[in-house]
Amino acid sequence: MYRSLLLFSFFACSTSFAQNNDQTTIREIFNQALSRGESHNMLRELCVDIGPRLSGSPGAAAAVEWSRHKMNEYGFDSVWLQPVMVPHWVRGQQEIGRIVNSKKIGNKEVSITSLGGSIGTGPAGISASIIEVKNFDELKQLGAKVQGKIVFFNRPMDPTKINTFAAYGGAVDQRGNGAVEAAKLGAVAVLVRSMGTGIEPYPHTGGMRYVTGVKLIPGVAISTKDAELLSKLLKDEKDLQFYLETHCQILEDAPSFNVVGEIRGGEYKDEIIVVGGHLDSWDLAQGAHDDGAGCVQSIEVLRLLKSMGYKPKRTIRAVMFMNEENGLRGGTKYAELALQNKEKHIAAIESDRGGYTPRGFTMSGSENSKSIIKSWKPLFEPYDLWDFNQEGGGADIGPLISQGVFQIGYLPDSQRYFSIHHTPEDTFDKVDKRELELGSASMAALVYLIDRYGLK
Amino acid sequence: MYRSLLLFSFFACSTSFAQNNDQTTIREIFNQALSRGESHNMLRELCVDIGPRLSGSPGAAAAVEWSRHKMNEYGFDSVWLQPVMVPHWVRGQQEIGRIVNSKKIGNKEVSITSLGGSIGTGPAGISASIIEVKNFDELKQLGAKVQGKIVFFNRPMDPTKINTFAAYGGAVDQRGNGAVEAAKLGAVAVLVRSMGTGIEPYPHTGGMRYVTGVKLIPGVAISTKDAELLSKLLKDEKDLQFYLETHCQILEDAPSFNVVGEIRGGEYKDEIIVVGGHLDSWDLAQGAHDDGAGCVQSIEVLRLLKSMGYKPKRTIRAVMFMNEENGLRGGTKYAELALQNKEKHIAAIESDRGGYTPRGFTMSGSENSKSIIKSWKPLFEPYDLWDFNQEGGGADIGPLISQGVFQIGYLPDSQRYFSIHHTPEDTFDKVDKRELELGSASMAALVYLIDRYGLK
Repeated sequence: MYRSLLLFSFFACSTSFAQNNDQTTIREIFNQALSRGESHNMLRELCVDIGPRLSGSPGAAAAVEWSRHKMNEYGFDSVWLQPVMVPHWVRGQQEIGRIVNSKKIGNKEVSITSLGGSIGTGPAGISASIIEVKNFDELKQLGAKVQGKIVFFNRPMDPTKINTFAAYGGAVDQRGNGAVEAAKLGAVAVLVRSMGTGIEPYPHTGGMRYVTGVKLIPGVAISTKDAELLSKLLKDEKDLQFYLETHCQILEDAPSFNVVGEIRGGEYKDEIIVVGGHLDSWDLAQGAHDDGAGCVQSIEVLRLLKSMGYKPKRTIRAVMFMNEENGLRGGTKYAELALQNKEKHIAAIESDRGGYTPRGFTMSGSENSKSIIKSWKPLFEPYDLWDFNQEGGGADIGPLISQGVFQIGYLPDSQRYFSIHHTPEDTFDKVDKRELELGSASMAALVYLIDRYGLK
Repeated sequence: MYRSLLLFSFFACSTSFAQNNDQTTIREIFNQALSRGESHNMLRELCVDIGPRLSGSPGAAAAVEWSRHKMNEYGFDSVWLQPVMVPHWVRGQQEIGRIVNSKKIGNKEVSITSLGGSIGTGPAGISASIIEVKNFDELKQLGAKVQGKIVFFNRPMDPTKINTFAAYGGAVDQRGNGAVEAAKLGAVAVLVRSMGTGIEPYPHTGGMRYVTGVKLIPGVAISTKDAELLSKLLKDEKDLQFYLETHCQILEDAPSFNVVGEIRGGEYKDEIIVVGGHLDSWDLAQGAHDDGAGCVQSIEVLRLLKSMGYKPKRTIRAVMFMNEENGLRGGTKYAELALQNKEKHIAAIESDRGGYTPRGFTMSGSENSKSIIKSWKPLFEPYDLWDFNQEGGGADIGPLISQGVFQIGYLPDSQRYFSIHHTPEDTFDKVDKRELELGSASMAALVYLIDRYGLK
């Protein structure tokens, strides 16, 4: 009772808030999230009850229905679906990677998994010798030597980079473009060292591309542990043989949806603040950190503000984007519709870096808007958010840049992320409730401030 | 080769380092830790190969030998043991807590565990009705009503505190003093809500005290999940009965040791910088975060500096303190011997808050020394350490305060700590390699700076 009286006194006043009222409101947002937050419960439903949600899969369809239902249940003003056609790739049953007849270890199965979007080898498999490279320059220097071989891309993520996303950025070209570059030189398949920070026994999947006019060859990831083994063997056995068998298939595009929920604003209802994550996830696990966390945090931002009786000036939208992992069709469609419907987005916030302890926000856009947000830094310091200096937004909100929409990325601690990213280990139990709810509260606090004061 | 030449150029120069050389050295410390760090390997040996290490147990003795061996293996200048007598408490085999004949749920076993240092009930057990209180004031108001009953202390850790150690500090009096306060009023046992941040199915153990002249009654922790259940039942069933059976025993004090290793300084070899953690751990798990992490990080600080060819001006010591959890005998003995041997400690650094991502350091002591350390803050910012503002040191280094030794606590992220602290969940797999190694590097960087420049 005391609490609700207190809340009334915050929100009954429609004129602009003093700094110290903002402090109190933000304190209340964090209190609510930490004592009665719903993010962790929602994440359990999305990850444990539904599970993997690759675009075009039954899991993705279930997740669409789940999030529509959830946002309706929380009483948002409107909840709707945005139809979008998505790539439909399936892994198939069996994935075999085998070192064959090594002088040192004989035959040995290694831990591999197809990269998303790859063709399969089919039941005949591929048998070939392996040639290791660290980058595309080395590959090009090999030239005709690559013909008929499996190219093994083995450049590790740089462990000395403190920001693990920077280490990822420095290695992921091998996964994305390795198959195309190797195929140009006549390779029959590519084996890519997993994008992981440590030495792990399981592989990391992730998207790869083909381009028109270049032969399609299979691309698979190998665990960092087995990549180390393979590299060691190759030092002495230049003609080491490998057998690869995968059964993945690229099917016809499938119908799917972005899911959008909003709380309509009062004074400036045509100004939209978007907060979102992506609903699709890789098929190997539950997509808990990537990006179940971002989805439930986005819904929770609206739920928190609504449950506190907050009446926004502007319209606040939670968007569950479909197909970030292998196509970005949802993000593209959302921006297309925003343009078509002449919507005015003043800021877009994305959470897609895992559900870990908050550190701050990345930003991309006008210097003036950045300065406004940086001026709020003292309001975030009691909650240990201190990093407002990095450039960046997010993949799904990226297509809004051409409409001049200010981009914000939620920035949690990054140390653990690339040990579970795109692997069988990205499961609900890896997410800490407090860390997750703190993220929701941080995003809600930022949305509250943008709503009160705008960004110019 | 390139790297070792570079190192030579850092350290060959014996005059004071410019800021930019410090930057380069600290970068090298982090590079070494993140690419060739030994903390995680050491922790595996200590936690998986040895396991639980409660004072007086065979595990504690094995840990003493392990750390002596490890520091010798790494070639520290001296490694020695400091004998110390420690409390010897054993849990015994069976621990039973049972709700008896509840009108709502009949009989139900709940998840309990004895608090460290408690007496047991013995095979006869204790049957009594339960009375719930939130704090000692409520207890005192109950007065004679407590007679013959089991007092149930059920004040949760405040989930809204961002610093979980503050929340712990606000609740732990129930665990430490509950049995004494309840016994004064004639209670027969105490049941204490576990010191955990979440609702968990497992109990948290931890130390409790008896005082001379007050009857000894058993103290046990109940899981937060079952504390919630019990509290709910008690709302309708005021005379709810409970059966408690534990077999723990307080044995004679046992001989044990602190383990000390050092690298001797050149210019000011009599000035000692100590870095340490506690070797003992609770018996329910592997003591990975509490405090295996702090032990291996302390050894790693010396190993890192030594492996880089660094020649310290001052003497740098790693101390594995024995018996932090239930007696602090090791910390007390270390300070006693320092005084007796007229040693001059210029700083003591303790790591005992888990092996999570670094945030900064707490400090306690002269304002001048604090200012010197704060002036180094820019050197730590590239590694995301930003919090140098909190007061504090550590339990084991606390006894050095009376000798005027400046106190420093390693400060990692605190969000996950109290979901595993003192529980069966404090296991090796809960520690992330990067987070752990970053902590070692942060401590090594601070030790390096204190060694170069002193603290006054």
